[in-house]
Amino acid sequence: MNKSTKIEFASDYQCGCHEEIMKLMLKTNLENTTGYGEDCYSEEAKALIKKECKNEDVDVYFLIGGTQSNAIFLKQALKPHQGVLCARTGHINCHEAGAIEASGHKVLPLACKGDGKITASQVEKAWIEHFTDDNQIHIVQPAGVYISQTTENGAVYSLKELTELSQVCKNRNLFLYVDGARLGYALASKGNDVTLADLCRLTDAFYIGGTKCGALIGEAMVIVNPEFKKDFPYIVKQQGGLLAKGRLIGLQFKVLFTDNLYIDICRKADEMGNKIALSLKKFGYELYCDSISNQQFVVFDNEVLKKLSEKYLFAFWEKKDETHTVMRICTSWSTKEEDINSLIEDLRINSMV
Amino acid sequence: MNKSTKIEFASDYQCGCHEEIMKLMLKTNLENTTGYGEDCYSEEAKALIKKECKNEDVDVYFLIGGTQSNAIFLKQALKPHQGVLCARTGHINCHEAGAIEASGHKVLPLACKGDGKITASQVEKAWIEHFTDDNQIHIVQPAGVYISQTTENGAVYSLKELTELSQVCKNRNLFLYVDGARLGYALASKGNDVTLADLCRLTDAFYIGGTKCGALIGEAMVIVNPEFKKDFPYIVKQQGGLLAKGRLIGLQFKVLFTDNLYIDICRKADEMGNKIALSLKKFGYELYCDSISNQQFVVFDNEVLKKLSEKYLFAFWEKKDETHTVMRICTSWSTKEEDINSLIEDLRINSMV
Amino acid sequence: MNKSTKIEFASDYQCGCHEEIMKLMLKTNLENTTGYGEDCYSEEAKALIKKECKNEDVDVYFLIGGTQSNAIFLKQALKPHQGVLCARTGHINCHEAGAIEASGHKVLPLACKGDGKITASQVEKAWIEHFTDDNQIHIVQPAGVYISQTTENGAVYSLKELTELSQVCKNRNLFLYVDGARLGYALASKGNDVTLADLCRLTDAFYIGGTKCGALIGEAMVIVNPEFKKDFPYIVKQQGGLLAKGRLIGLQFKVLFTDNLYIDICRKADEMGNKIALSLKKFGYELYCDSISNQQFVVFDNEVLKKLSEKYLFAFWEKKDETHTVMRICTSWSTKEEDINSLIEDLRINSMV
Amino acid sequence: MNKSTKIEFASDYQCGCHEEIMKLMLKTNLENTTGYGEDCYSEEAKALIKKECKNEDVDVYFLIGGTQSNAIFLKQALKPHQGVLCARTGHINCHEAGAIEASGHKVLPLACKGDGKITASQVEKAWIEHFTDDNQIHIVQPAGVYISQTTENGAVYSLKELTELSQVCKNRNLFLYVDGARLGYALASKGNDVTLADLCRLTDAFYIGGTKCGALIGEAMVIVNPEFKKDFPYIVKQQGGLLAKGRLIGLQFKVLFTDNLYIDICRKADEMGNKIALSLKKFGYELYCDSISNQQFVVFDNEVLKKLSEKYLFAFWEKKDETHTVMRICTSWSTKEEDINSLIEDLRINSMV
Repeated sequence: MNKSTKIEFASDYQCGCHEEIMKLMLKTNLENTTGYGEDCYSEEAKALIKKECKNEDVDVYFLIGGTQSNAIFLKQALKPHQGVLCARTGHINCHEAGAIEASGHKVLPLACKGDGKITASQVEKAWIEHFTDDNQIHIVQPAGVYISQTTENGAVYSLKELTELSQVCKNRNLFLYVDGARLGYALASKGNDVTLADLCRLTDAFYIGGTKCGALIGEAMVIVNPEFKKDFPYIVKQQGGLLAKGRLIGLQFKVLFTDNLYIDICRKADEMGNKIALSLKKFGYELYCDSISNQQFVVFDNEVLKKLSEKYLFAFWEKKDETHTVMRICTSWSTKEEDINSLIEDLRINSMV
Repeated sequence: MNKSTKIEFASDYQCGCHEEIMKLMLKTNLENTTGYGEDCYSEEAKALIKKECKNEDVDVYFLIGGTQSNAIFLKQALKPHQGVLCARTGHINCHEAGAIEASGHKVLPLACKGDGKITASQVEKAWIEHFTDDNQIHIVQPAGVYISQTTENGAVYSLKELTELSQVCKNRNLFLYVDGARLGYALASKGNDVTLADLCRLTDAFYIGGTKCGALIGEAMVIVNPEFKKDFPYIVKQQGGLLAKGRLIGLQFKVLFTDNLYIDICRKADEMGNKIALSLKKFGYELYCDSISNQQFVVFDNEVLKKLSEKYLFAFWEKKDETHTVMRICTSWSTKEEDINSLIEDLRINSMV
Repeated sequence: MNKSTKIEFASDYQCGCHEEIMKLMLKTNLENTTGYGEDCYSEEAKALIKKECKNEDVDVYFLIGGTQSNAIFLKQALKPHQGVLCARTGHINCHEAGAIEASGHKVLPLACKGDGKITASQVEKAWIEHFTDDNQIHIVQPAGVYISQTTENGAVYSLKELTELSQVCKNRNLFLYVDGARLGYALASKGNDVTLADLCRLTDAFYIGGTKCGALIGEAMVIVNPEFKKDFPYIVKQQGGLLAKGRLIGLQFKVLFTDNLYIDICRKADEMGNKIALSLKKFGYELYCDSISNQQFVVFDNEVLKKLSEKYLFAFWEKKDETHTVMRICTSWSTKEEDINSLIEDLRINSMV
Repeated sequence: MNKSTKIEFASDYQCGCHEEIMKLMLKTNLENTTGYGEDCYSEEAKALIKKECKNEDVDVYFLIGGTQSNAIFLKQALKPHQGVLCARTGHINCHEAGAIEASGHKVLPLACKGDGKITASQVEKAWIEHFTDDNQIHIVQPAGVYISQTTENGAVYSLKELTELSQVCKNRNLFLYVDGARLGYALASKGNDVTLADLCRLTDAFYIGGTKCGALIGEAMVIVNPEFKKDFPYIVKQQGGLLAKGRLIGLQFKVLFTDNLYIDICRKADEMGNKIALSLKKFGYELYCDSISNQQFVVFDNEVLKKLSEKYLFAFWEKKDETHTVMRICTSWSTKEEDINSLIEDLRINSMV
């Protein structure tokens, strides 16, 4: 039986969906609506998202999951000889089973620090290296930049960083695409200065993550650059991303974008993440990297980890050395205050100082 | 506003899910379970399906939709130089936006009659044509056969037909794969003599359709041939078919395969389909093809169609000539008896005889 | 030992290259030139081809063979959701081992008669069918038209036919691409009214076949539409089509396009083809289709075929029935007058009348 | 005019082919032979190569170039979810315009030193990392190893190194594939202890480079592992690698593998390479890496480079810093002794000591 009996900090997708979503699903279950995402709930959700983006011109599509969203966007954005720049630790480079290569394109990795970010100057350098090479036709052409917000390691790009990335992309005719699997946690994080409207201004496309931010399933792709709008629905269908009962996702985003629910539930998770981070520092634990969002990465002494693991579920991140392991502690909309307090107490008991 | 105000016969995916499914989703919503389909509900559902298949050795995977299921199976079953034989009207040839070609493979169409079936002798002939050709390396190699049950046109392969197809495939080292988007309607149809256990005996893989048979989303892929088991999960992930909250689909199949629900709801839809077919014949309408399942195809006089369309929603199939149109009339688990009766009465009023 | 001891009519690629080509290869063998097709001979050949095209703006690339040329052009011309219309008997549909599908695209076959041609109205109809379909995103989008000149069956599109095809393509925003593996035989054929300049005016791209028209290896791709120029060399390299010693092909086209050699040698072959056709008709043989070029297709009584095959090599085309076989009789620049006379005499001896 | 007027050290593919090859091409030009590589010259060449390999069971195919050879082998050796391990500087990772990704597969780069080699322990580590990862289905599966002999930087794997690589590959069920674009220069290099027979014993497949070792065009793929034999010709055709006049390449390998010509001409080039290396060291030039073959990499002071470049052609490799540039000096079968002596004298004149 793998219903979890331990206290859950392994991920932000172990639970069902927020109760407001479940309520509307239940209420509307027996209604007949047009299939393939042309239903009223999807339409309402699109309108709500456009409003939050302060942009009526974007196209919004409801897709199934992160890997597929990335694959669909990049498949249509890249020509056969082009690749996409991304952090070496980027999800498309490491954790999508080669989905981008499966559509024929090379992921062009850039070095990154523990925070998982890449910089405008790295992008500029990569562009120059390619386009000043006499043998450029022997080398995959960089056509765009992929970043994730929050990054794989819970960091959040600032408005300044994003603006710089956007600028170099515009200068060099590269697209800028944001994987927002955990965008809610970024938007809600303390100190964040980036809005959805900023993303519309600075990027060519991004997706607003649902699955990891309170929905049962689904992501909302926002396409800003008109060049990427026309053919998009064909590619969605071709990649198996068009749901017959498309309202399943539309309806959820309608709920999430009503009364600020999306931000509210993510903020709560971020606050709990930060509370854990504070305690970790206070009790002398080594943080693997700085994070202001719902994912915290900590280097555990294996003995301590063993003790804590009797009661809590964390996610394995990587082995540091023979006696230490990096683990992810993850909160979500469904994390309970009492569980946080319990964890903090146990961190105190096993204090490293 | 596209919530339908007409009586719905356009498709079998306009409504939500069966209420028993909704009940369990609601009840389990706040439970924490392991992600990526390794939860207890998915495990239970797999066990129930294996039991119904009378086969403990098959592998069962829960996937998102039909196009993706077909693409995933064929991507791993075909080598780069191979293609798949299918009816010219087959879904993969006509309605999946080139998903099979997108993974590098040619669909090799065979002629078919109005029922959408292909025969063992056609497969044998195609095999011989390829493998006796001196220039065979210039031609795509047929590696397997795709059929759908029910077919695109609502027909059901008999046990004899399936056995013959299976035999030629085994003889010629071709795989046999069944697209079961509407498998429930086939299994429940009057006169059907094929069981899930037969499919396990006669095919290499098939999927049991959920989306069009009472679920909110999801299909259950059953892999029989061990050769196709090992790598399957990698391809699922690569194609974006691995749900973080995989229990969403597992849970639904658990309900559908409890107390015979899957067959019961499809039988009801089939019976209503047959009732419509009977009335159509009785009142002199021309049937486009014979169907014993939940989809009926009728050639309407455009004037009559216009009148009926004020009250009912059908699906456009094709234009027959300037004054006639082929329409699909579709029933499902959610079709109401009273709506059937109303339709029949209106068919009578506009009687063709 | 498979050096042929019979008289060769099986194909137009059994011999080496025209002696003028061999001469220049020998003479220049020890010169050092820049690699990857940036040598002086390739430059000269491009200039000669542009001159013959009466068009300085086209781009010319030297590629290795027909299958690769088609694959490279279509790979860059088609977006992921698009396919290419072609005759059901077209080379890309039947004889390239799925090379187009391997790059992710569906070949969209159109019915054709024995001559292997398709018409403007067929293209128009296919376009309308797609773009007026409510479910068009479920269906591969036609983006262009592939034809071959001569066709697979030796027929030649007239200027009128090409102009009509070009017109519908321009109207519907489809590209028109011509596979010219045997373009020389078309240009040189009696009654032909299409020039290279016409092809530049009417198509988006075409290639001038070398391998089957006197060269040792190589085809010259002419790209007219600026949209397809920029990225072309990247795709050539990616598909393995960029020769380190690129001059090998450039040099050959320099010779072929000097002093009208290309047309002259093809004309001779056409004339011999027509001489054979005349004799076939005169002596009562059934022609499989009409051809005015170097390939003739004849339905042989198997007994007669057996006798002729003791002395001559033809190419098997298809089995007609139990007692008849369709064979191709092919001439080329290297066919000898005496061999033609010998064949005609033997056709006479085995006369069908 | 880009016929080179300077003394040529830029590459080993600036000239035509060895005169013995040209002789046989000329002599056989007007013979008729079977097309598509089924001619007598290709058969003879295969027999000669098998003999040199001391292995009658290998399959030999004549292909067009290096990028295509790699793409064809890896396309058929890799399943859709698999990738190939290679040195970060490997040709398939850096200089083939994404040809491997174009067929759907990720290149999995391993760190390497200046010599461009990877080690058995790196391969072992990569295998363990993948197969002990709980989330391995989210990650591209390593299925084989690509190395080049000589490496990109002119280094030669020793028998010991190759044996270790082979052992770990066999243990872990990985294939070992060798890109032999410059295999002749490796086999002929001073101190080399690896034979073609060793390669047959230790690898699954490798190709013997022709283009850069005296041929006009062409590489000979040797397939050892029976698993990779059956489908190979289909993939060759699909990738556009099947020449109608296939004898063009077969004939050249027949000459190269007669009377030890292949090794003899490469040995001469290696010796000249080593002579240059010796002088570079003697005159105080900084070598970029150690090479015992025909490619030498040297860090030039830009002023010196400018002077030398008035008389000699080298290949740009990379910019080291503002005042230094790494250049490749390349010899081949066609390099003249007098040109080597001239270069050495000029290196002396511009001596760094």
